[in-house]
Amino acid sequence: MPRFGGPSTMMRLPAAETCEGLDACFIGVPMDIGASNRPGTRFGPRQIRAESAMIRPYNMATGAAPFDCIEVADIGDVAINTFNLQASVDIIAARYAGIFATGCIPLTLGGDHTITWPILKAASDHHGPVALIHIDAHADINDDMFGEKIAHGTPFRRAHEAGALINDKVFQIGLRGSGYSADDFNWSRDKGFTVVPAEHCWHRSLAPLMDVVRERIGDAPVYLTFDIDSLDPGLAPGTGTQEMGGLTSIQALEIVRGCAGLNLIGCDLVEVSPPYDPGGTTALLASNILYEMLCVLPKVDRHRRENVPTDPLHERIF
Amino acid sequence: MPRFGGPSTMMRLPAAETCEGLDACFIGVPMDIGASNRPGTRFGPRQIRAESAMIRPYNMATGAAPFDCIEVADIGDVAINTFNLQASVDIIAARYAGIFATGCIPLTLGGDHTITWPILKAASDHHGPVALIHIDAHADINDDMFGEKIAHGTPFRRAHEAGALINDKVFQIGLRGSGYSADDFNWSRDKGFTVVPAEHCWHRSLAPLMDVVRERIGDAPVYLTFDIDSLDPGLAPGTGTQEMGGLTSIQALEIVRGCAGLNLIGCDLVEVSPPYDPGGTTALLASNILYEMLCVLPKVDRHRRENVPTDPLHERIF
Amino acid sequence: MPRFGGPSTMMRLPAAETCEGLDACFIGVPMDIGASNRPGTRFGPRQIRAESAMIRPYNMATGAAPFDCIEVADIGDVAINTFNLQASVDIIAARYAGIFATGCIPLTLGGDHTITWPILKAASDHHGPVALIHIDAHADINDDMFGEKIAHGTPFRRAHEAGALINDKVFQIGLRGSGYSADDFNWSRDKGFTVVPAEHCWHRSLAPLMDVVRERIGDAPVYLTFDIDSLDPGLAPGTGTQEMGGLTSIQALEIVRGCAGLNLIGCDLVEVSPPYDPGGTTALLASNILYEMLCVLPKVDRHRRENVPTDPLHERIF
Amino acid sequence: MPRFGGPSTMMRLPAAETCEGLDACFIGVPMDIGASNRPGTRFGPRQIRAESAMIRPYNMATGAAPFDCIEVADIGDVAINTFNLQASVDIIAARYAGIFATGCIPLTLGGDHTITWPILKAASDHHGPVALIHIDAHADINDDMFGEKIAHGTPFRRAHEAGALINDKVFQIGLRGSGYSADDFNWSRDKGFTVVPAEHCWHRSLAPLMDVVRERIGDAPVYLTFDIDSLDPGLAPGTGTQEMGGLTSIQALEIVRGCAGLNLIGCDLVEVSPPYDPGGTTALLASNILYEMLCVLPKVDRHRRENVPTDPLHERIF
Amino acid sequence: MPRFGGPSTMMRLPAAETCEGLDACFIGVPMDIGASNRPGTRFGPRQIRAESAMIRPYNMATGAAPFDCIEVADIGDVAINTFNLQASVDIIAARYAGIFATGCIPLTLGGDHTITWPILKAASDHHGPVALIHIDAHADINDDMFGEKIAHGTPFRRAHEAGALINDKVFQIGLRGSGYSADDFNWSRDKGFTVVPAEHCWHRSLAPLMDVVRERIGDAPVYLTFDIDSLDPGLAPGTGTQEMGGLTSIQALEIVRGCAGLNLIGCDLVEVSPPYDPGGTTALLASNILYEMLCVLPKVDRHRRENVPTDPLHERIF
Amino acid sequence: MPRFGGPSTMMRLPAAETCEGLDACFIGVPMDIGASNRPGTRFGPRQIRAESAMIRPYNMATGAAPFDCIEVADIGDVAINTFNLQASVDIIAARYAGIFATGCIPLTLGGDHTITWPILKAASDHHGPVALIHIDAHADINDDMFGEKIAHGTPFRRAHEAGALINDKVFQIGLRGSGYSADDFNWSRDKGFTVVPAEHCWHRSLAPLMDVVRERIGDAPVYLTFDIDSLDPGLAPGTGTQEMGGLTSIQALEIVRGCAGLNLIGCDLVEVSPPYDPGGTTALLASNILYEMLCVLPKVDRHRRENVPTDPLHERIF
Repeated sequence: MPRFGGPSTMMRLPAAETCEGLDACFIGVPMDIGASNRPGTRFGPRQIRAESAMIRPYNMATGAAPFDCIEVADIGDVAINTFNLQASVDIIAARYAGIFATGCIPLTLGGDHTITWPILKAASDHHGPVALIHIDAHADINDDMFGEKIAHGTPFRRAHEAGALINDKVFQIGLRGSGYSADDFNWSRDKGFTVVPAEHCWHRSLAPLMDVVRERIGDAPVYLTFDIDSLDPGLAPGTGTQEMGGLTSIQALEIVRGCAGLNLIGCDLVEVSPPYDPGGTTALLASNILYEMLCVLPKVDRHRRENVPTDPLHERIF
Repeated sequence: MPRFGGPSTMMRLPAAETCEGLDACFIGVPMDIGASNRPGTRFGPRQIRAESAMIRPYNMATGAAPFDCIEVADIGDVAINTFNLQASVDIIAARYAGIFATGCIPLTLGGDHTITWPILKAASDHHGPVALIHIDAHADINDDMFGEKIAHGTPFRRAHEAGALINDKVFQIGLRGSGYSADDFNWSRDKGFTVVPAEHCWHRSLAPLMDVVRERIGDAPVYLTFDIDSLDPGLAPGTGTQEMGGLTSIQALEIVRGCAGLNLIGCDLVEVSPPYDPGGTTALLASNILYEMLCVLPKVDRHRRENVPTDPLHERIF
Repeated sequence: MPRFGGPSTMMRLPAAETCEGLDACFIGVPMDIGASNRPGTRFGPRQIRAESAMIRPYNMATGAAPFDCIEVADIGDVAINTFNLQASVDIIAARYAGIFATGCIPLTLGGDHTITWPILKAASDHHGPVALIHIDAHADINDDMFGEKIAHGTPFRRAHEAGALINDKVFQIGLRGSGYSADDFNWSRDKGFTVVPAEHCWHRSLAPLMDVVRERIGDAPVYLTFDIDSLDPGLAPGTGTQEMGGLTSIQALEIVRGCAGLNLIGCDLVEVSPPYDPGGTTALLASNILYEMLCVLPKVDRHRRENVPTDPLHERIF
Repeated sequence: MPRFGGPSTMMRLPAAETCEGLDACFIGVPMDIGASNRPGTRFGPRQIRAESAMIRPYNMATGAAPFDCIEVADIGDVAINTFNLQASVDIIAARYAGIFATGCIPLTLGGDHTITWPILKAASDHHGPVALIHIDAHADINDDMFGEKIAHGTPFRRAHEAGALINDKVFQIGLRGSGYSADDFNWSRDKGFTVVPAEHCWHRSLAPLMDVVRERIGDAPVYLTFDIDSLDPGLAPGTGTQEMGGLTSIQALEIVRGCAGLNLIGCDLVEVSPPYDPGGTTALLASNILYEMLCVLPKVDRHRRENVPTDPLHERIF
Repeated sequence: MPRFGGPSTMMRLPAAETCEGLDACFIGVPMDIGASNRPGTRFGPRQIRAESAMIRPYNMATGAAPFDCIEVADIGDVAINTFNLQASVDIIAARYAGIFATGCIPLTLGGDHTITWPILKAASDHHGPVALIHIDAHADINDDMFGEKIAHGTPFRRAHEAGALINDKVFQIGLRGSGYSADDFNWSRDKGFTVVPAEHCWHRSLAPLMDVVRERIGDAPVYLTFDIDSLDPGLAPGTGTQEMGGLTSIQALEIVRGCAGLNLIGCDLVEVSPPYDPGGTTALLASNILYEMLCVLPKVDRHRRENVPTDPLHERIF
Repeated sequence: MPRFGGPSTMMRLPAAETCEGLDACFIGVPMDIGASNRPGTRFGPRQIRAESAMIRPYNMATGAAPFDCIEVADIGDVAINTFNLQASVDIIAARYAGIFATGCIPLTLGGDHTITWPILKAASDHHGPVALIHIDAHADINDDMFGEKIAHGTPFRRAHEAGALINDKVFQIGLRGSGYSADDFNWSRDKGFTVVPAEHCWHRSLAPLMDVVRERIGDAPVYLTFDIDSLDPGLAPGTGTQEMGGLTSIQALEIVRGCAGLNLIGCDLVEVSPPYDPGGTTALLASNILYEMLCVLPKVDRHRRENVPTDPLHERIF
């Protein structure tokens, strides 16, 4: 079947009704009513799936061969209530409780960032408090937005309050922009989170950062949440709350690939807004980041050919 | 000031804090959380205002000179709560209660169609039950959507239940498309509403229809609500729930101009979704329809030059 | 499930592997290598399915209730060979031979118009020569294009040569534009086809035309092929070979609804090119036309409520 | 050569340096500094040429075969001064004086409507005062715009003042919208021009109008100027000063085809703005209208096949 | 008020009629008639304001709190004459003379780069010759363009001739591309300007460059002009004369933040062309750069929390 | 002539029928039927030419003055057969055989990457086996695609089999993404090609790499093929098979400029797909890369001004 035809599941994987028998699943949460500025992430799962059609099974850069190692399927979307944010949060929490109960690792296609709160709730109910790698332009630790406790700017405050996080194993990477007070990012620091502002990431590889992150997290269960607005808006325009001066897509790959070896129990990619992504480039990045997440799950081996001849050219120039 | 510069109020009118001293006001309700399919109408007021910059004061077709007759300003937007639909409905109702209390006629820039329910509530609290001219692809008389009573598919059910409508002076024009049961449109008919499906409007002028509508409504207070998805999606693509086979923009003008002489107490134009309207054509139509609404308000005179020479050409061909 | 979530099959119908047990099926042919100007129709099936998500089961205009009457599913796409046009034609012919053999009626999501040649081949192999209702801006009866016998401008020449058509029951509606000789459309007339140029359709309902078409075709097996470029490019821009001055979307509805009562054995909707349809309006029209085709299949009843009160208003104005 | 390749001249015609030996020429004026709202018409000639690649030599609707009858080439663009409007007007006037001197008929690809003033100046210097068929949403007869005498809203005032027009043979068709005074269109009427507002054109064929126009003009030399904003913005969005409720593209064809038999001495198509026409549909309409202008030039014969069998179907339904 | 509602002033600041009592003002110059290639910057001020709605008061990266320190408002647009470039230059010069006379620092939303010439004229009339930090892909020091002295490629030649610049305190950063002679950039060097071509900026932080710039300028009055085409067209496509291989948005932040401590007397951000920026990303960058300019004005303090715990992680990896 | 007017040849160069007397020529191959995912490269030549209009004769960064040194023209497009891939390959091979026979160096505007196979065939027939610098996200060394030997994923396998390449002088730079087996890139290595994956290029200048490439190639005849999808999709979205994490446009310039001194006998730039490049940014990059290729041809001198004063600033910061 040519890549422009065939099923519209993630990576054209089989569709499954449940996650029974799966090691990992792709699942969508088509929601945007938690967004404070541009909407549209309700169409994120559909477009991420569409753009995923080009992804082939083997990861040429890392040697990962996920489908040789684990069972994966696309289990469809969560049927949220688009007229009621609190009701949707409850629906999501219930659905993920069921997923975690089976031992299947969910890889979530968002959706606005509100959805990470009920996912983390379900995750910690099952696993106990979790470490968190949080890639984002925003800290999302507001106490409320316009008086509401549930919104895409509050999920990590809610998770902290619920005891879902191992505070000294929380890493917030890529934060930047303008804020409501000079202390906006210090709430996180006060709680023991590690904040890595975008400015600290400029002009450098993030592989060394991830070495430290892995060392600190050790073998604790860890959740990886990736807000596409962590990337520079020039590279990933299809999102709702753009902030200038963000990460590059190369750094995104370094971060996710740097999670190999961690005890990942769930991952999400949120805030892709297709109406602002007419050529699909942002959804394409998202689908690839989700694929790279799959490639670093605990059971996925890497079997790079040993006998790749080392070109002396490399020694001279790199 | 060139038309591409200057203030971004509706028609570059003065901004006002309140509607004191105004005969009519433009007001925005930047909301889309009541939408069941594509979002984006939260940006409707901003883009309708931007595209209104080309409109000049005199209506060449009808002779209306609204600014010679009445005081008009742009009073800005209603500060809705974008995370809570019910709270937003209450905020809107309170704001419009204040407007109707002053005698000012609101011309509303939507926003999804949910907003017409609290506006009609406030209107009928002040004026008593009102006649309704409702231009739309959809009847919007569902009892609920996904279990929720408040959504963009329910406003006229809620208004009917609240006694806000004079049933035999309700006209629903342009309805079409597919439905959840063969009887979808019959709830309206059973209540005494007049349903004019789109198919009855094809290939003809709607001026005769409006003659009858005016005759039936008489001097009752009347509210005009215009959903831009009543138009054919080929002509007005920038909306969320498109239905094939709709009205033309010429019929839209015939409908609004056909309201001249009625006792209009409020008007709205809803469901413009700028993310789906990159060239601004749909917002341009919306801004012109709102201008035409202004031109048929009760106090606006028409003073067409009497001595326009009648060209004998017209007699031969038209 | 909200309409922006859930499976991406046509109308979110169940997916099926085969057409066993089905009265009708939706099937995609993701091909564009037969196109002479703009490409992109390879993505037609995917986008038509995406835009079909808003369609509800009941046809409010005609009263048709297709899912109450017949079994329908989406059987996915034909795995064409995108590097070889002749090979693709053979693949399509084989697939449709299998479909017609089961008695299932295929409703095809194109794809460029080349695909109708192998479909007609398979149809006539099963049913014998068929009547044809062909809605298009172009006659598509070239002997060759740049020396090639297979292309999107030749399918009906090939079908005629193969004896697949009942010549005096072929109707080509909407033809227009510029040509390679003054006699371009006369080949059809010489063969006994009825040509209805677009100019004959301007400013009028096509319901009377369809009355005659039905009368002429009688109970012969009939295939309906609808090229979206038959519509005016202002209304349906997402296609590859636009011609000014085309049909309206209202006329498209009149044509398809006018096929009720015919012995339809297959239908297609071709030439939607998503890269030229960023807002999806053309794909939305296509998905609705396909739905209307479903609604006029032989076994689909219409049960409009008998007791709709006739509004005297209608008598006065319509 | 496939249509997506080859030279980018109008209709892929030969390029010529001068109009020596030509009966008619296509010529571009890439200018937009006379525009009062949206710019972009400076790219009009380039995009109209690009979209013209699909046009074939024979006009299937009218039987015209222009290239069998006259010599035509594309003579390129006028080298205007984009920083100085008055200088550009002088450059245009000089260039067209040279063209008219050779007897060649210019078919101009605009450019904003300012350019018609110097063209009319050159035309009337050569031919004496001319009849004018002016298709537009706007009368373009302002005395000045923001104090400037030269702008896209003033060309016909300037032409009148210069004695370039035969006043009672001037037809302004499609005027509409809002204005600066209730008398905006009466300046034209007072001068003897015939004004046909858009409202008079709604819901009808314009063929009868053109019958009268031809009768009134007789054999006077006539210039045809077609502003693409005369069309409805839903159909032709790629322009700078859209007005709701305009002509259809079918009416555009009726108007231009209705000019057959007139003594046309020049034609233009102006105000196509490619930045607002990303899919090229407006430029496509423009290129076809220019082709239809070519097809009605005085020396172009129509040789429709006489023996087209009249289908009795036509008598029954049309 | 949600960010998608409310006034469309810069950062939703209060609108002011004049700059009386203000320390700094945002002001728009909606002009594009000085542009030699793509137009559209006339809509720059409107779209920059629209995209500025997301900016919050505190600068998380630098600790700047501009609104705690100075009075700022949006004073609207300059009413240029869009049909006459020289007249517009005079209007701008007069308006800015008034602004500088009050001591208010203007932060200008362009508009094409022509506008910087009259602004520099007014600035130097008030302050005497000024230092200049000029970020751009082009040197803009042509003697004329197509024979015209006023255009967007000539402002710094005109400013130099008028004695408005302190030659050895002029820095042109980001220059690149192709030119009309091999010596194009040497005119600047000959006059004593410092030219930093884009190639010298590749792959590095520009913070060290700005250290030198600050040292050289000392406490001279300095004007900062930022042409958005200095950025790479992949990151900032919405502009008229793109040049491959430009600065990153991170370098843009380093440059503007590196101006802290200078005696800035005015700033502008020019050449944003909204028709080529449909998603608004370029205007978003522009609005943020203007905000960063505000944050480095002389009176704006930075009060970063002293007690941010230094994470030992930073020492290991950065 | 302003840049938005005039001929649409590459860089507005003269058009030529043949390459007689030319040192180098620009030539288009408007083909996309070899593409496996998104189509559209058939329009690549036309849009690359359109965006090339801004390029001026002198290269400010390198001092190259190509038009002072060599004769160059645009010889138009190859008339491929868009319905038959093998036939098109033969047409291309024949056309390039004629070009190489004259000694003219072709600079090709693609077109999908299939075209490089017949060009290399013709090149090696004339020059013998050639060195190859291949910039791409993909190795394009598949044995077949869906069973077909000719497609855009196979050209370098075909060229190798035909003995057209000097294996140890083949460099494939920028490869990345996912593959069909863990060994995908090792076929190249096994043949002696040097593979430089994208990951080895991250965060660094590629000038040192090109130093080694030049040293290894020496004075062998060399062909340079540049697939625009080698660039990161955030920077060059207008292409068909995007892969995350690619080269920057700065690295593209370093690569092409690093070819100065080589014995280049032909170059191409392929895979620009205009339907996915609405703002033209990708085509602009392509046109500039083609210009930089012209600037490094063997006969093109570089005459940078010797007396550019070295600014001491550079020593301090760079």
